[in-house]
Amino acid sequence: MLDRLYVRKKIERFLLEDIGYSDLTTDSLNLTERIKASIVTKERGIIAGINFAKEVFRILDPDVKFPISIEDGTSVETDETVLVIEGYADSILKGERVALNILQRLSGIATTTSRYVEKIKDLKTRILDTRKTTPGFRAFEKYAVKLGGGSNHRFALYDMVMIKDNHIAVCGSITEAVNRIRKNVSPMVKIEVEVSDLNQLKEALSLNVDIIMLDNMSVEMLKDAVKIADGNVLLEASGNITIDNVRDVALTGVDFISSGSIIHSSRWLDLSMRIQNTAGGN
Amino acid sequence: MLDRLYVRKKIERFLLEDIGYSDLTTDSLNLTERIKASIVTKERGIIAGINFAKEVFRILDPDVKFPISIEDGTSVETDETVLVIEGYADSILKGERVALNILQRLSGIATTTSRYVEKIKDLKTRILDTRKTTPGFRAFEKYAVKLGGGSNHRFALYDMVMIKDNHIAVCGSITEAVNRIRKNVSPMVKIEVEVSDLNQLKEALSLNVDIIMLDNMSVEMLKDAVKIADGNVLLEASGNITIDNVRDVALTGVDFISSGSIIHSSRWLDLSMRIQNTAGGN
Amino acid sequence: MLDRLYVRKKIERFLLEDIGYSDLTTDSLNLTERIKASIVTKERGIIAGINFAKEVFRILDPDVKFPISIEDGTSVETDETVLVIEGYADSILKGERVALNILQRLSGIATTTSRYVEKIKDLKTRILDTRKTTPGFRAFEKYAVKLGGGSNHRFALYDMVMIKDNHIAVCGSITEAVNRIRKNVSPMVKIEVEVSDLNQLKEALSLNVDIIMLDNMSVEMLKDAVKIADGNVLLEASGNITIDNVRDVALTGVDFISSGSIIHSSRWLDLSMRIQNTAGGN
Amino acid sequence: MLDRLYVRKKIERFLLEDIGYSDLTTDSLNLTERIKASIVTKERGIIAGINFAKEVFRILDPDVKFPISIEDGTSVETDETVLVIEGYADSILKGERVALNILQRLSGIATTTSRYVEKIKDLKTRILDTRKTTPGFRAFEKYAVKLGGGSNHRFALYDMVMIKDNHIAVCGSITEAVNRIRKNVSPMVKIEVEVSDLNQLKEALSLNVDIIMLDNMSVEMLKDAVKIADGNVLLEASGNITIDNVRDVALTGVDFISSGSIIHSSRWLDLSMRIQNTAGGN
Amino acid sequence: MLDRLYVRKKIERFLLEDIGYSDLTTDSLNLTERIKASIVTKERGIIAGINFAKEVFRILDPDVKFPISIEDGTSVETDETVLVIEGYADSILKGERVALNILQRLSGIATTTSRYVEKIKDLKTRILDTRKTTPGFRAFEKYAVKLGGGSNHRFALYDMVMIKDNHIAVCGSITEAVNRIRKNVSPMVKIEVEVSDLNQLKEALSLNVDIIMLDNMSVEMLKDAVKIADGNVLLEASGNITIDNVRDVALTGVDFISSGSIIHSSRWLDLSMRIQNTAGGN
Amino acid sequence: MLDRLYVRKKIERFLLEDIGYSDLTTDSLNLTERIKASIVTKERGIIAGINFAKEVFRILDPDVKFPISIEDGTSVETDETVLVIEGYADSILKGERVALNILQRLSGIATTTSRYVEKIKDLKTRILDTRKTTPGFRAFEKYAVKLGGGSNHRFALYDMVMIKDNHIAVCGSITEAVNRIRKNVSPMVKIEVEVSDLNQLKEALSLNVDIIMLDNMSVEMLKDAVKIADGNVLLEASGNITIDNVRDVALTGVDFISSGSIIHSSRWLDLSMRIQNTAGGN
Repeated sequence: MLDRLYVRKKIERFLLEDIGYSDLTTDSLNLTERIKASIVTKERGIIAGINFAKEVFRILDPDVKFPISIEDGTSVETDETVLVIEGYADSILKGERVALNILQRLSGIATTTSRYVEKIKDLKTRILDTRKTTPGFRAFEKYAVKLGGGSNHRFALYDMVMIKDNHIAVCGSITEAVNRIRKNVSPMVKIEVEVSDLNQLKEALSLNVDIIMLDNMSVEMLKDAVKIADGNVLLEASGNITIDNVRDVALTGVDFISSGSIIHSSRWLDLSMRIQNTAGGN
Repeated sequence: MLDRLYVRKKIERFLLEDIGYSDLTTDSLNLTERIKASIVTKERGIIAGINFAKEVFRILDPDVKFPISIEDGTSVETDETVLVIEGYADSILKGERVALNILQRLSGIATTTSRYVEKIKDLKTRILDTRKTTPGFRAFEKYAVKLGGGSNHRFALYDMVMIKDNHIAVCGSITEAVNRIRKNVSPMVKIEVEVSDLNQLKEALSLNVDIIMLDNMSVEMLKDAVKIADGNVLLEASGNITIDNVRDVALTGVDFISSGSIIHSSRWLDLSMRIQNTAGGN
Repeated sequence: MLDRLYVRKKIERFLLEDIGYSDLTTDSLNLTERIKASIVTKERGIIAGINFAKEVFRILDPDVKFPISIEDGTSVETDETVLVIEGYADSILKGERVALNILQRLSGIATTTSRYVEKIKDLKTRILDTRKTTPGFRAFEKYAVKLGGGSNHRFALYDMVMIKDNHIAVCGSITEAVNRIRKNVSPMVKIEVEVSDLNQLKEALSLNVDIIMLDNMSVEMLKDAVKIADGNVLLEASGNITIDNVRDVALTGVDFISSGSIIHSSRWLDLSMRIQNTAGGN
Repeated sequence: MLDRLYVRKKIERFLLEDIGYSDLTTDSLNLTERIKASIVTKERGIIAGINFAKEVFRILDPDVKFPISIEDGTSVETDETVLVIEGYADSILKGERVALNILQRLSGIATTTSRYVEKIKDLKTRILDTRKTTPGFRAFEKYAVKLGGGSNHRFALYDMVMIKDNHIAVCGSITEAVNRIRKNVSPMVKIEVEVSDLNQLKEALSLNVDIIMLDNMSVEMLKDAVKIADGNVLLEASGNITIDNVRDVALTGVDFISSGSIIHSSRWLDLSMRIQNTAGGN
Repeated sequence: MLDRLYVRKKIERFLLEDIGYSDLTTDSLNLTERIKASIVTKERGIIAGINFAKEVFRILDPDVKFPISIEDGTSVETDETVLVIEGYADSILKGERVALNILQRLSGIATTTSRYVEKIKDLKTRILDTRKTTPGFRAFEKYAVKLGGGSNHRFALYDMVMIKDNHIAVCGSITEAVNRIRKNVSPMVKIEVEVSDLNQLKEALSLNVDIIMLDNMSVEMLKDAVKIADGNVLLEASGNITIDNVRDVALTGVDFISSGSIIHSSRWLDLSMRIQNTAGGN
Repeated sequence: MLDRLYVRKKIERFLLEDIGYSDLTTDSLNLTERIKASIVTKERGIIAGINFAKEVFRILDPDVKFPISIEDGTSVETDETVLVIEGYADSILKGERVALNILQRLSGIATTTSRYVEKIKDLKTRILDTRKTTPGFRAFEKYAVKLGGGSNHRFALYDMVMIKDNHIAVCGSITEAVNRIRKNVSPMVKIEVEVSDLNQLKEALSLNVDIIMLDNMSVEMLKDAVKIADGNVLLEASGNITIDNVRDVALTGVDFISSGSIIHSSRWLDLSMRIQNTAGGN
C-alpha cells in the first residue's frame, strides 16, 4: 500500500495540472446540486486504484461519499459498477478525468500483469516490474503491478544496488564494481548484478551477491545458469519476456522474471463515468 | 515546443523520484572518468524527446556535450544512433533510466500517432489527442503527438470549454449549459459541445459554438452530421477510433478525429543506451 | 470562478509570506477566546474577493463561521458590513491583513472596471483586461475584472496566440508569423494579431485570424478599421484607453476594448476590520 | 537590497504563472536569432527593479547581456532607455511581459513615494510603508519604497511586534497586551503600540515601548502627542495621509509617517520594450 | 509560539522524509484497529514539543485523540506519561519516530537550557540562543530554548542587523559598517555590533547602536565593559560560555549571555512510545 | 555519497531559512569586493561535509573558487585550515553560518562515530546508525556516520522492513507480523525483526528473516543469542550502547551494533571562518 500523505500530495499536483486556476467549463456553470455518478467497466479486467480515485474526489469535496466501491484487485466483467460517487456536481465533474486517468492506467497494468502471472501460477517463479515507468507516476504504476499479482523490484536508485552492464563497462569488471560498492554501501542494502553470459555468472556467484540478473539469455542458457547457481543465489531472468515465452522462461527454474512491458506496454482498461441521478439539492 | 523552464522543473522532479538522496550504485562507485555513451534504436519508429533527454543529462552535469543528436520527429530504423552523450560517467549512468523513460515513452506515442496520420495523410482531417494522459506527464505526451504528425486538442480544463455529456446531464440541456457558460466565460475562449445524436447536433448548431464533438457515432451518422453542419462549424469525431477505421471516419469529412488511444495505448519504442568508450579522464 | 484547490494553495503561500514561522504579536498573546469581527466599507464600490477572504480564515481555523456575508459583485455604500467572521481570536487577528489585502485590491479593481463598463453599458463593446497584472496574483486580479462587469482576455501565454509588434518585427511580417504559428500550434487555439495601421489590418484580414488588435489608433482610424473588417473578424481596440475616451472608442463599433489600467492603475477600496464582541470562550 | 536566491525563486514562479508549459506564440515561431531590445520610458519617474528585470531574462537565457542599464533609483524623463537586452529572441519575447510588469509596478511605487518624500525632504520625518501590499509580491513592493526615498516599516508579522486596536480590544487594555507580549517575545524584538487618543498615548508611554503609532489623529492632536512624548519614544503618524497633508503632518514633529497608499494606490509607470535590431545570428 | 500553518507544512515534509511513498512495514501489515499508545519519559527533564508531536499524528489521522497530554515546559521525572495517543494503529506506528525525534530533540534543548537558566535565575541576565541551529529545523530548536527559560536572539538574517567581526574586517571599521547599514536599513531594525576589545566597544558606543556583543572576553574585561557602557546600551556576552562559568559571566552585569551550545551541544532527552492497549476496532 | 541534485535542493532551502528575503546586514553593506576566507579547526576531530559547504557558497556565487580544501573524512588537529573560499564578500558572509552549521554538525557526528569505531576496529562488528535523526536533515547526518567509519542502517521507512516491538504488540506475534509482511512486500526488501528475549529470537530464526535486532539485552544474553543464531542470520545489538560498553557488546560476536547516540548525542565540532585578505576587487 502507498502512504496516504504521499498519495494526497501527488494527486493535488495531478489535479492542478488539469485544472490550473479554473475548470472553465464546470466553474462557469455555477452548479450547486449534489449528484450521484458511477464508474463502470466497459471491458473485463482487474481493477486497481479505487482508493486513489476516492482521494481525487475527497480533495475536491471533503464531504463526498462512496456508497458503492469494490476492492482494489477485484476481477471485473463488462458493465460492472466499480465506484459510486455522491457529492457536489462540480467536484465530481472536475475530478472525473484525473480519477479515470489513474484508474484506467492502473487497471490496465494490473490486468496485463495478471495475464503473465496466470501463465505461471503453478510455478514458484514470480513476475517483477522494473524502473521503466512513466516519470512522476512510478509509485502508482508499481502498486498496480502488485494488484495484478506481480511483485515489485526495487523502487528506485536509492533502495538497492543493481550493477548493470554499463556500470561494469566503466569499472572494468564485476569484481571491481562489487568491491567498490561494498566499501561504500550500507550492509543493509541488497546487491544485484547483471550478467550476460555464464562466465560472468560464475564471477558474480563467487562474490556472494544477493541476486543475479540473467540478461537476455536463451531458455537453454537460463537452464544452465540455474544449474550453475545451484540454489546459492536468487536468479532473475530479464529481457524480451512476452506473454508467449514467459512460461518457458519460468520453467527454467529462475526465481524471478522481470518485465518492463507489464507497465510500459500496457494499454488502459476501458472505464467510464456516468451521472446516475441527482442526489438531492443543497 | 514546450517551455524550457517548465521542462527543467519537471525533469528535476523526475530525477528526484528515481534518485532520492542517492543512487546507491553509481554514487558508491566513486567514478571520476568522462565517458561517451550512445542511445540507439532497437526498432523502427519516430523519435520524440531528444531535447528532454539532453536536459536530463545537463541537470546532472552542466558540462555534458552531445556530439551526435538527431532531430525530434526523425523517422529511424533499427540500430540507429539517436544521441551521443559525452560527460562524467556518474551523471550519465544516473540519468540513463529517466532519459530513456522519457524518450521511449514519447517515441512510442509519436510512432503510434504517425501510423494514424499516415492512413489519412491525403485527407483534410486531422488527428487530435485528448486529456487521457498519464497524470503529471501530460505536456510531454501531448508534445509527442505533435511530433507524430497529430495535433493537440485542448491542453487542460483551463484553456477551452468543452461541454460533455455529464455537464449536459446536470444542466438539463445543451442550450442551458451553453447559456450559463457564455455568461461567465471569457469571449476569448472557444466552446465545444459533445453531442451523441443528430438532434443534439442541431441544437448545438443553433447555438453557434466553435466546435462540435460527435461522440461514438457510426460512419453513416457521421456523414449525416457533416451534411447537416454544412461547413458552419468544426466537427470532431470521437470514440472507438482504431487504426482500422480511422480512414473511414476521416472520409466522412469531419475536421478532426480525436483519439485517446494514440497516447494511452501506445507501447514504448525500444531504445537502449550503450557505453561507447571513455572520453578521457579528469 | 477560480478553482478552490488553486485558491487554497495560493492563499497558504500568501499567509506564509506574512506570518513566516510566527506572528510575534498574536502568537505571544496566548489568546484562546472566540470573537466576532466584521469587515466594513469606508467608501462605495463593488466588492470582490469575499470567498478568498473566507478561505484565509478557514485555513487558519477550520471551524470559523461567517454569519453574515454579502455576495461577490455586490455594489456597496460606505459603512456597510460585507463579512462577519466568528472564530478564534488568534486566527482572525492573524488573517486580518492578508484577507483585507486581497479584498481591498480586488474590490478596487472591480470598482474601477465597473466605471468603464458603466460608460458603455448600452453598447455591444466589451471591456477586456490584459496580462499587465501583478506577478503571482493574476488569477485573482482577472477574477475582479469579471466581478466589475469586464471580460477576461487570455489568461497567459499558454492559452491563446497573440502575435504582437515585437513578434512581427522579428519574423519580418504578419504573414510570415501567422504561417509559422499555424504549422505548430493546436487548431483549437485562437490566434490574434496586433496591427498598428490599416495596411497591417488588411494583411491580417487576409490571413483569417480570429481577432485583430488595433493598437493605439485614433478614433477616426478605428472607424475605418471597423469598416474595412466589415464584421469578418473580432476587433479589439487597445492603447491609452481612459474613462474619458472609452465611450468614443466603443462607439467606433469595435467588439472589445482592452485596458491594462483597470488592473494596474486601480487603487484599493477602503475597507477595515473591527472586533465586534467576543463570541463566547472555549 | 533583496537576496538574489530569494529573487530568483520568486521570478521563476512569476514566469511559470505566465508561461505555463508553453508560450504558444513564441514557442511556435521557432526563433533562433539573437536580437537587441530596449526598455524605454514613456513618462517621467523613478526607475526601480532593473536587477529583477535582468534576472527575468537571465533565467530564460543564461547568456543574455545588458549593454546598457541605468541604476535603480535613477530619475528619468520621457523616452529614456533604461535597459538594453541582447540575447535570443525567444527568451526576450517570453520574458518581456513579466519583466515589464515588475519594472512598471515598482517604478510606479518609487515614483509615488518620491513625491511624498520630496514634500518633506527638509524635515526629519521619514515616510514609511505598511503591510498593505499585494499578496506574494511584498518584498518587491517594499524594495520600491526604498528606491523612492521612503523607509520600510516591519516586513511581516515575524520581525516586530505591533499591538493594534484589535489586539487591544481582545486583551482589554494596552497594558495587559504589552505585559503578555513581554513574557513571550524575544528581547531583541521591537514593540510598537497603536493608540487612538492621548490617554492611550500616556498609557503606552508608561510601558516604555519602542514606538507608538498615532492612529488617525488630527494635526492638532499630533502636536499635543509630540509634546507629551517629549522625545522619549519614536512616534509614527498613520491614517489618511495624502500628498496634500503630508507636510502638515510632518511639521508636527513626528518621527515617521506611514502610508499604505504609496504602495496600494500607486499606478504603474509607463514603460515599453522595443526590438532595436537583430544582434547577429546563432 | 510557532504558527500552526508553518508547523504543519514543515511536519508534512518531515514525515515524507521518513515515509517516502510507503512505510513498507506498517503499510504491509494491513492494520485497521484503533489503539492507545503512550509516550513516557526515561529520564528527568523539561518537555518541549508536545503540540508538534500531536500535529504529526493529526496529519496522519485527522480523528486522532489525545486523552492525556502534559503542557509544554513541564518539568518531568523518569517514567512519567507525557502524551497518550488514541487512533488508528497504522497512523500511530508511522508517526512514532518523527514525533519522538522532534520531542526528544526539543526536550533535550529545553532541559539543557534550563540548567543554564537555573544557575542565574536570581540575576537580571538572560540566556540567549544563536543562529547555530540544525539547518531546516531552526524554528523548532529556538522554540525549545524558550521552553527551557531562555530567550531567543534574532531568528535569522532578515530580522535584525548584526555586524560581526568578518563584516568589520571587510568594511575596514565598525563606524564605516554602521554608517553604510544606516543608509540602507529600515529604521525599525535593531542594530547589534560585535566587539572584541574595549576600544571597539567605545567606538560602538559612540555610534548609538542598540546592542553590543562582547566577543570572547574574560570576566575581568566584561566587568570593565559593563562599567564603560554604563547602562547606555544592552550588552551581550558571547563565546565559550559553559555551565561552569555562566554565573561568573552573569555576575559581571551583562544583559545577555548568548550560547550556541544550548542548542548544538544538547543531547536528546530519553523518551519512548509504548502501545498501551487496543482502543476498540473499526 | 549523496546525490548532488538532492543536496542542492536541500541547501537552497537551508539558505532561504536563514536569509529569507534579505540578509539585512550584508545586503545593506553594498559590498562588491572579492575576498578570501578560510574555515579553520579549533579542536581535533574528523571533518565531514566539505562538499556541502562548497555547495552553499556555489549557490550564492557560481564563480566561487576553493584554492584549498581537505577531503571529507580527514582527521584534523586544532588550527588546521579545512577550506579556503575565494569569491564575492557578500556571498561568503551570507553563506558563512549555513556552511558552518552543516560542517560543524556533520564533523561532530563523524568524530563521535569514529570514537566508537576505534574501540572495536580489530573486531568484525560494525557500528550502525538509526532513524533517530534531526527531522529534515537525515541524509546529511547519516552521511557523517559513514565518514566516521560507521555504517548506515536503513535510511527510512521505505527501504527496508523492520518489525519492532510495537508492530508485534499490535499483530499479536512475530510470526503473524512476518507472514502478513511477506504477503505484501517486495521480495527485494530485507526484513529485520526486533526481539527482546531468547524465545522471540528462536521464533524469528524459524521465520528465516534477514536480520534480527537484539533489543536491550545484557552482554550475557547477547552471547547466548549469538550461540543460538549460530551464523544463520545477521544479528544487531541495540539499546544503551555507550563508548564504555561498545567493546564488550562487540566481543559477544554480534554483526552490528546500532546506536542512536552517535547522531543524537553528538555535539558540534568547533570550527570558525576567518577573513584572510581581499582577493582583488571588481
